Amino acid sequence: MKLTRFSIKPLHRMTRALAAVAMGREAPDLVITGARVLSTYTERIHDNREIWIKGGRIAAVKAAGSFRGTSGKPGAKSPASHYDARGGILAPGLVDPHIHIESAMMTACAYAEAALLNGTTTIFCDSHEIGNVCDTAGIEWMLADARQAPLSIFLTVPSTVPATNPRLETAGGDLTPKKIGRLFDRWPEAVALGEKMDFVPVAMGDRRSHAVLAEALKRGRPVCGHIYGREFVAAGAASGITDTHEAIDRDIADDFLEAGVWVFLRGGPPTTPWHSLPEAIKTVTELGANPKRVCVCTDDRDADDLFLFGMDWVARQAVAAGMPPVTAWSMGSLHPATRYAKDGDIGGLGHGRRADIVLLNDALEVQNTWFGGELVVENKKITRILDAALSKRYKYPKPAYNTVRLPAGKIRLTPGLPEAPVTAHVIRAALPGIVLFHDRLRLEPAPGETWADLFRRHDLCFVTVVERHGKNGGVAHGLLRAFGLRDGAVASSVGHDAHNIIIAGTGEADMRLALATLKKLRGGVCVVRGGKVIASVALPVAGLLSDKRATAVAKESAALKKAWAAAGCALPYMGFNLIPLSVIPEIRITDKGLVLVPEMKIVPLFEKT
Amino acid sequence: MKLTRFSIKPLHRMTRALAAVAMGREAPDLVITGARVLSTYTERIHDNREIWIKGGRIAAVKAAGSFRGTSGKPGAKSPASHYDARGGILAPGLVDPHIHIESAMMTACAYAEAALLNGTTTIFCDSHEIGNVCDTAGIEWMLADARQAPLSIFLTVPSTVPATNPRLETAGGDLTPKKIGRLFDRWPEAVALGEKMDFVPVAMGDRRSHAVLAEALKRGRPVCGHIYGREFVAAGAASGITDTHEAIDRDIADDFLEAGVWVFLRGGPPTTPWHSLPEAIKTVTELGANPKRVCVCTDDRDADDLFLFGMDWVARQAVAAGMPPVTAWSMGSLHPATRYAKDGDIGGLGHGRRADIVLLNDALEVQNTWFGGELVVENKKITRILDAALSKRYKYPKPAYNTVRLPAGKIRLTPGLPEAPVTAHVIRAALPGIVLFHDRLRLEPAPGETWADLFRRHDLCFVTVVERHGKNGGVAHGLLRAFGLRDGAVASSVGHDAHNIIIAGTGEADMRLALATLKKLRGGVCVVRGGKVIASVALPVAGLLSDKRATAVAKESAALKKAWAAAGCALPYMGFNLIPLSVIPEIRITDKGLVLVPEMKIVPLFEKT
Repeated sequence: MKLTRFSIKPLHRMTRALAAVAMGREAPDLVITGARVLSTYTERIHDNREIWIKGGRIAAVKAAGSFRGTSGKPGAKSPASHYDARGGILAPGLVDPHIHIESAMMTACAYAEAALLNGTTTIFCDSHEIGNVCDTAGIEWMLADARQAPLSIFLTVPSTVPATNPRLETAGGDLTPKKIGRLFDRWPEAVALGEKMDFVPVAMGDRRSHAVLAEALKRGRPVCGHIYGREFVAAGAASGITDTHEAIDRDIADDFLEAGVWVFLRGGPPTTPWHSLPEAIKTVTELGANPKRVCVCTDDRDADDLFLFGMDWVARQAVAAGMPPVTAWSMGSLHPATRYAKDGDIGGLGHGRRADIVLLNDALEVQNTWFGGELVVENKKITRILDAALSKRYKYPKPAYNTVRLPAGKIRLTPGLPEAPVTAHVIRAALPGIVLFHDRLRLEPAPGETWADLFRRHDLCFVTVVERHGKNGGVAHGLLRAFGLRDGAVASSVGHDAHNIIIAGTGEADMRLALATLKKLRGGVCVVRGGKVIASVALPVAGLLSDKRATAVAKESAALKKAWAAAGCALPYMGFNLIPLSVIPEIRITDKGLVLVPEMKIVPLFEKT
Repeated sequence: MKLTRFSIKPLHRMTRALAAVAMGREAPDLVITGARVLSTYTERIHDNREIWIKGGRIAAVKAAGSFRGTSGKPGAKSPASHYDARGGILAPGLVDPHIHIESAMMTACAYAEAALLNGTTTIFCDSHEIGNVCDTAGIEWMLADARQAPLSIFLTVPSTVPATNPRLETAGGDLTPKKIGRLFDRWPEAVALGEKMDFVPVAMGDRRSHAVLAEALKRGRPVCGHIYGREFVAAGAASGITDTHEAIDRDIADDFLEAGVWVFLRGGPPTTPWHSLPEAIKTVTELGANPKRVCVCTDDRDADDLFLFGMDWVARQAVAAGMPPVTAWSMGSLHPATRYAKDGDIGGLGHGRRADIVLLNDALEVQNTWFGGELVVENKKITRILDAALSKRYKYPKPAYNTVRLPAGKIRLTPGLPEAPVTAHVIRAALPGIVLFHDRLRLEPAPGETWADLFRRHDLCFVTVVERHGKNGGVAHGLLRAFGLRDGAVASSVGHDAHNIIIAGTGEADMRLALATLKKLRGGVCVVRGGKVIASVALPVAGLLSDKRATAVAKESAALKKAWAAAGCALPYMGFNLIPLSVIPEIRITDKGLVLVPEMKIVPLFEKT
């Protein structure tokens, strides 16, 4: 059986059938009874209700026990099946207003499994990673993938590909305003423009940035934002940006709301830098802002965190921060649906809506999930129907598996030892891992000393980026401080946003093995030590995604993270991937070299002192 | 100077300029300073703010005194003009989510005057009256009218024209699903389907009714509702209806919200039956529903009430009923804007939004209105700019002035006196004027008695409907009880929904004069007494609208209402116009005769006893 967003008919083809059920002239297919109902519309919980479902949509919510069979006319359909919710709370499936599927290291079809277990039935995803590697083609593969997933997936069209410009790094994609316009016109699920990451150029009036905004605005589509710094809120909002998931504290969250920007409170594992919800929510709990334009979102999750820290977890974090449970659940369902003008179809248990329903216990933990009226999770486990659907995942085409195109000849992955004293521009890692610091370090090797001696003395290792789009074979060498890697190498093809290969290591040999491993895997992540591959995850689709099921990817990812930590790496895998992201201060490394941010200037590794 | 919705550029052509102002690189055109600001986003009032306006849009809201001129670069535009709000409250212009312009007896261009005086800057209108007379052409004339008005006017496409069917009355229009689809495709301002009045056929699965719904739903446009009776809420909502302005009490309002239907609380002059707000709002004040999906609206206002009972008055009624002022104002601005997914452009003082702004005193009374940054009302008076704009109103084309096409030959407007005793099916009027009662009256004229004797004995007068679309010249006679008309006649070409001519009178002569008067006026209303026209309002456009300015129409309307009351009429003019509306119980009269509702059956005036 097919189980996708399209398994149920659009509302306009079902109104007569739903009216017939609502009036009692025909029987529903399914009655979920004996439940409390959480209303996201009025923020109340009602006792003793039941939901009548027909053709995967909600025909009516009634008092429990209302359904007593059809009118008995000949020809009336067979009576409904019943599901006893045993006093649990029925609530709408969660709607994640901002996520990147690629962060989960798996395809859209695979992603659905973890989402549904966590009660998420709709996501608005921004596939800018695959866009950075494969341009429009990659985004369209992922849209095809999304259409086959047992999940409702809408696209916020990637707006900032490449993140910077070809002078600063080599990317695979170049989404011009025209291409973005075409994506809107071809794909009805492209409902908004994705996070406009270049908030400084936007504020400064950059023509291309504003031409991209115009493609969305002239079609009446909203624009999602990504703004850091209170001084940029006014201009971003004035440029048409109407949401943000980057409100990292109380005051900027308040600024955003007042500027007319929806605030998506981002929750994330406590070990990541994404958990801004507890601070940002204070606009409501301390400053008294009405929460009607506040949502919750996940943004990024790696494969194993995906199962543990879903939208349901974020909603519970909002409760922990002081929100009433009904408000918290609205922030994760009706409010995002309203933000994207989809509240006629999702976000609440209203009549005519998709029967995307969860059964919760009193702690808001998801017990069951119905997707379009189909029971896909029961007692916290996926059902056979979902299991079968997940085994038939979209297959990405051949070019998607051929994106790690490394330079042909021999390349050196490490710099030569300076022969005279130099000042090195060094990247210093520090938790939580977003900002990386710029150290100017005097290196003065004594006669006979090697890199190993300098590394010990200064707490350093190599960090190298290799262009992997087959465009110019560029290689850049750098030095990484306080990363903690004791010996060996780690490497990834996910390094943001151009997704070139980033390798950190203590010596040429292990770094070469790491690079060769990623080449063989056609992309991925690995940990190498003493000439051996200790752990790896293959990400052969665009060098970003595994093509396996979510549980398999999560298992591999957990093992990798274990080896990663055992190797001593101070930055987690997700933070490591940000090292090439040259839009975050203070210093980054791309295939073009060391980039100072926000000066947007390339500096050499060594300067003569 | 032109002053319309299109006087300012769409946002996508202004983002660079707005960002430049927001960042302080360029000067705004206007700074409104020294104000408190009412935030509909967070439902708070902030002290000491100022609004920077550029090109008719809000570039930023800042702390008062922030603007200190441009950076001083050569070439920077001249510094902004300042407007001192003297500590008043700046709030977004009101957004009326459901109105019928025709009820106001004037054109869209004229309507703008009263709206702006009341702080309303956007309306969502349903022009089903002109649709009932002139079909698609009438709706398109009014859309052209709306485009020239100094007001933002959006259309909710008339969904139920005719209100019933040709067996029960003769209408001028017949809006098939196909015609409705074409209106959506031709007019981008057609943002929703207008109130689906035939809620019983919708609940019963009528094919044409659902085909009309599908035209909106398949285009992703919302559907506005009109449902009476709690038993019809479930099926209406299941059929895709997502708002109502007909929630007349607490419990049905609560049902609507829970079914996923936005509730528009309708406020109206205390003398009309429209004032359902005080009861319906109890879903919030007594039952604890969150008001985030509750709006206020006006629905219908005649010309003089329009100035007195605008959206601002309705918002103040919500305050009187217990809402905090910030919530009440949100119900009249941000909530309606959100309901129609226009909150990126209107409904709040967010950056990038239209500078549709009102200045309020602490009682929420409108002192000033800015429309697209242009000061159009100051100290409760219209400005010269608005005055000039109002003098250049849209001219309806010739066919719009030729819609009162009466039967050519001689017609009798009164029935013959029965020669033997009969039972008459009589319409009994009663306030508030929506429901009309069905009396079965034995008429037994004694020898020599006339109608006048029977009228005195039974508190009766004649009521006659004359088909006026030039289709069949039908005339139907009836008797109206307890109407109070002492002598003479009153007549109107507005009688809902087919807008045939309805005349009540005590004798043939005055009724003929009334009819002749309406013919001469090409439509309108009049009061006739003793062979003289006492008062009249010409409504030559489709027999529904005056082509004069709002103040002129209001003056005429007030004089007419005075004469109307002086003639003894117990039903006000607006209630009188409902006498032919054969979708409201219990008995009505159309050009086809007396209609029993809800049986939808025609009965003769007299039956032999």
